[in-house]
Amino acid sequence: MLSEPFPSGLLERAVQQLARLPGVGRKTALRYALYLLGQDVDTVRNLSMSLTRLREEVKRCRVCHNLCDTELCDICASPGRDRSLLCVVEDIHGVMCIERTGLYRGLYHVLGGVISPMEGIGPSDIELESLFQRAESGEVAEIILALNPTMEGDTTNFYIARRLAASGIKLSVLARGVSVGDDLEYTDEVTLGRSITGRTPFTP
Amino acid sequence: MLSEPFPSGLLERAVQQLARLPGVGRKTALRYALYLLGQDVDTVRNLSMSLTRLREEVKRCRVCHNLCDTELCDICASPGRDRSLLCVVEDIHGVMCIERTGLYRGLYHVLGGVISPMEGIGPSDIELESLFQRAESGEVAEIILALNPTMEGDTTNFYIARRLAASGIKLSVLARGVSVGDDLEYTDEVTLGRSITGRTPFTP
Repeated sequence: MLSEPFPSGLLERAVQQLARLPGVGRKTALRYALYLLGQDVDTVRNLSMSLTRLREEVKRCRVCHNLCDTELCDICASPGRDRSLLCVVEDIHGVMCIERTGLYRGLYHVLGGVISPMEGIGPSDIELESLFQRAESGEVAEIILALNPTMEGDTTNFYIARRLAASGIKLSVLARGVSVGDDLEYTDEVTLGRSITGRTPFTP
Repeated sequence: MLSEPFPSGLLERAVQQLARLPGVGRKTALRYALYLLGQDVDTVRNLSMSLTRLREEVKRCRVCHNLCDTELCDICASPGRDRSLLCVVEDIHGVMCIERTGLYRGLYHVLGGVISPMEGIGPSDIELESLFQRAESGEVAEIILALNPTMEGDTTNFYIARRLAASGIKLSVLARGVSVGDDLEYTDEVTLGRSITGRTPFTP
């Protein structure tokens, strides 16, 4: 399977390049390539241009480090956002997930990773210093730690909490508990345990 | 999920374009886009260029209609190939699968599809006329029908056989039978039945 007899060098190169995408093997890459061969020239040109422009032109917001097309992202630039509230996320996925809820009106801070001694990622490798600078500006009243609940996420939370201990800024984390619409039977013990210790007042 | 709050228009466009690939949804497209964002500018440029060049420059061999980079494909141009043997396949996958066995030394004819009344594909929509022209050249002694064993494939085989009935060209199909290394227990009845009626002499 490794030495596939490609009838075209152009096809072979395209397949090799496509097979670098995450989770894409040579079979899938060949499928993508043959699909593109069947499309309009313009469709393929648009795709190619989109990818090149994405890589060359996309920026990171100078305040929150989220991906954006301008110096300052739409969220940071919005006058309707609560500037006293900061939500710390690992990457753009975090921003998109929380924005999708439509329930958060504060600003974000995208770390671009989490502290991971195993992978050699220390505090200075992610956007922590700029977070502390924003915290020291006096504008921030509360920071919501919304990192993924992994060991690395917890380590990063702990690091932030220690650095901001004297700042007087309120730190909070996302509530853990039973999913909305989910059955108790299918909730794992740790989550169910957290939902009991972190129970909230019943509001009929 | 449909109105995802993309922080960047460039990212959104790239995701939209990538999500057109077969089997790729918006989540996978976003994963591909973020992966590409983390790569070298050159890597992304190479990918884009490969896709555009693939679509713009790849040719079909004027004899067998297989994909290639030149007017005549390597197989048709090879002096070591048996020009009296023609293998009819549906698409490039067929050529690649049979080439991979390393056991076929004849030429190919890529139909670019099969006759499918359901999808409105008639004999004139695929490369049948050029097949009959090659057959009539007098060079071909045997044609191997290697289409997929679907109703459409069978219809196409039947059409070819009827047109070439008076030509004196030997027609054959791929042998059907138990897979090499496969257990009888896991072979379906139709295949097992074909392997009995089409049994071959035992050569110790």
